[in-house]
Amino acid sequence: MIGGGSWATAIIKMLSDNFSAKEIYWWMRNADSIAHLQKYKHNPNYLSSVEIRIPEDNISDDIAAIIGKADYIVLNVPAAFLKETLAGISPEQLKGKKVISAIKGIVPDENQIIGEFLNQKYQVPLSDILVISGPCHAEEVALEKLSYLTIASVNVGLAGFFANLLNTRYIKTNVSDDIFGTEYAAVLKNIYAVASGICHGVGYGDNFQAVLISNAIREIKRFVDAVHPISRDIMESAYLGDLLVTAYSQFSRNRTFGNMIGKGYTVKSAQLEMNMVAEGYYAASCMHFINKKYKVDMPISRAVYAILYEKHSPHIEMRLLTEQLS
Amino acid sequence: MIGGGSWATAIIKMLSDNFSAKEIYWWMRNADSIAHLQKYKHNPNYLSSVEIRIPEDNISDDIAAIIGKADYIVLNVPAAFLKETLAGISPEQLKGKKVISAIKGIVPDENQIIGEFLNQKYQVPLSDILVISGPCHAEEVALEKLSYLTIASVNVGLAGFFANLLNTRYIKTNVSDDIFGTEYAAVLKNIYAVASGICHGVGYGDNFQAVLISNAIREIKRFVDAVHPISRDIMESAYLGDLLVTAYSQFSRNRTFGNMIGKGYTVKSAQLEMNMVAEGYYAASCMHFINKKYKVDMPISRAVYAILYEKHSPHIEMRLLTEQLS
Repeated sequence: MIGGGSWATAIIKMLSDNFSAKEIYWWMRNADSIAHLQKYKHNPNYLSSVEIRIPEDNISDDIAAIIGKADYIVLNVPAAFLKETLAGISPEQLKGKKVISAIKGIVPDENQIIGEFLNQKYQVPLSDILVISGPCHAEEVALEKLSYLTIASVNVGLAGFFANLLNTRYIKTNVSDDIFGTEYAAVLKNIYAVASGICHGVGYGDNFQAVLISNAIREIKRFVDAVHPISRDIMESAYLGDLLVTAYSQFSRNRTFGNMIGKGYTVKSAQLEMNMVAEGYYAASCMHFINKKYKVDMPISRAVYAILYEKHSPHIEMRLLTEQLS
Repeated sequence: MIGGGSWATAIIKMLSDNFSAKEIYWWMRNADSIAHLQKYKHNPNYLSSVEIRIPEDNISDDIAAIIGKADYIVLNVPAAFLKETLAGISPEQLKGKKVISAIKGIVPDENQIIGEFLNQKYQVPLSDILVISGPCHAEEVALEKLSYLTIASVNVGLAGFFANLLNTRYIKTNVSDDIFGTEYAAVLKNIYAVASGICHGVGYGDNFQAVLISNAIREIKRFVDAVHPISRDIMESAYLGDLLVTAYSQFSRNRTFGNMIGKGYTVKSAQLEMNMVAEGYYAASCMHFINKKYKVDMPISRAVYAILYEKHSPHIEMRLLTEQLS
């Protein structure tokens, strides 16, 4: 496991509660967190109620050592830090390993989803790449609330194998061959969660929220069908479910961030106030550039981009958007 | 307008705020409410903040007189009371009139949606029947929050004409030819709102809720595709949007009712406590019988039926359901 946040902690818990034999190694950057984890068996900063049952020596801030020992590498740092995290790792060191992205985001500058980035920059074969997707708040995993995950890979057998390492009493898994659609949907949903928050902040109600989300899933479908035209049912949990859990959640950072923007905060002051960065903020910019190539009609994403990056008024931009929805 | 509840009041408000010339007549059963309305210009029991600007003489409890004067009849009583409301009205009295159903429900005993019932029992031609659908909480119309309605009729020109009588600053309308799909989706969503409430009451969280709803929209699609196989996009507002606004709303009576059932109330005690009847309760039974004909795979509806009518344990039934969802 590469990364020390709440989603990483949640997946560690699933892997530990699952009965198949396995050895878990965990890399995180923060040495204080590692010391705390080794001493108290709890992650001090994220899902700190979860008991961690990993041998002390398996937790380390030496990424090369951790990757060296593992057959399966779960990448679970914010997309914005992925390049920096892997800076000391060569393609050679990933050779023969399966790489699982639990990241929902786009690699900055490259404007690539994680699967593409691993494939092109690290020569990981597509058949060795997997994606884990929700709908799944890490907080509910800590509470052992029933959650469904989707494991996607062009190598469906491999996806099934890895899914079986995650299944527990409170985790059910679906397997999918749609790695690109799953990744893009997971990125886009954060933009629509920001849009939900903006609409709420500006004063729209539940009736409009329902219209916004029903348009958002159509926007996701248009985009993924354009980028990767395979047969898929966009109403499955990994697409629609993931959008719903994010856009309708009061806990979503993206929605909270959007709400502050809608209420008139600047991007900078909203980020300062929240003391964290909403992934949808970066996603809006990355998708704006990626879609220059595909030219898919994406009025909601475009409105969010205009508000966050071109300083358009949320009130006016959302009013214009309402004319384009149905 | 036939009916005196909050949805009737909301539609009266839209029609009044819309600029096209029209004369509005309003029937309701309760003479006290009529007297109050005539004197104070507000409906005493529903959306009482809304000012009603209809001439006193146009509000009456004489249904034959009101229907006699009108060219367009909006039916807006609970489905359970429709037969009783129209008991004194003959097919002759509806002849040549357009009939709009704002009812979301099934006619008891007949197990028919409103359009079918009007067509078969009152010989109203299908081309004179319209359906109004959401996503739309009446409460938000009272607050003039932007809402989108769908007007459906096999006579799309007529639907467009009626839509233009409803458009206002805060109401946008879509037009559809899918009267059957729109009606069935509006009925089914109440069952899924009950299911949402049950799951919440039993202890499932937001992660599962997202899975439940993404399965529910697929269940709606399977059913309406079987009953009325035309080309439709189930992700449009009238289908998915309507499901979302109901299933995710804290205000939904159906969700509240389900929540009480999930927490262990009996149907009777939940109804007594709420002092009103959740439409999803009736819908679950009607759809159970209707689906005996079509035999569509509807695990969520079946689970709700088993809990409400066969006294199955909500805990056990929902755990069994989780095995059938993905």
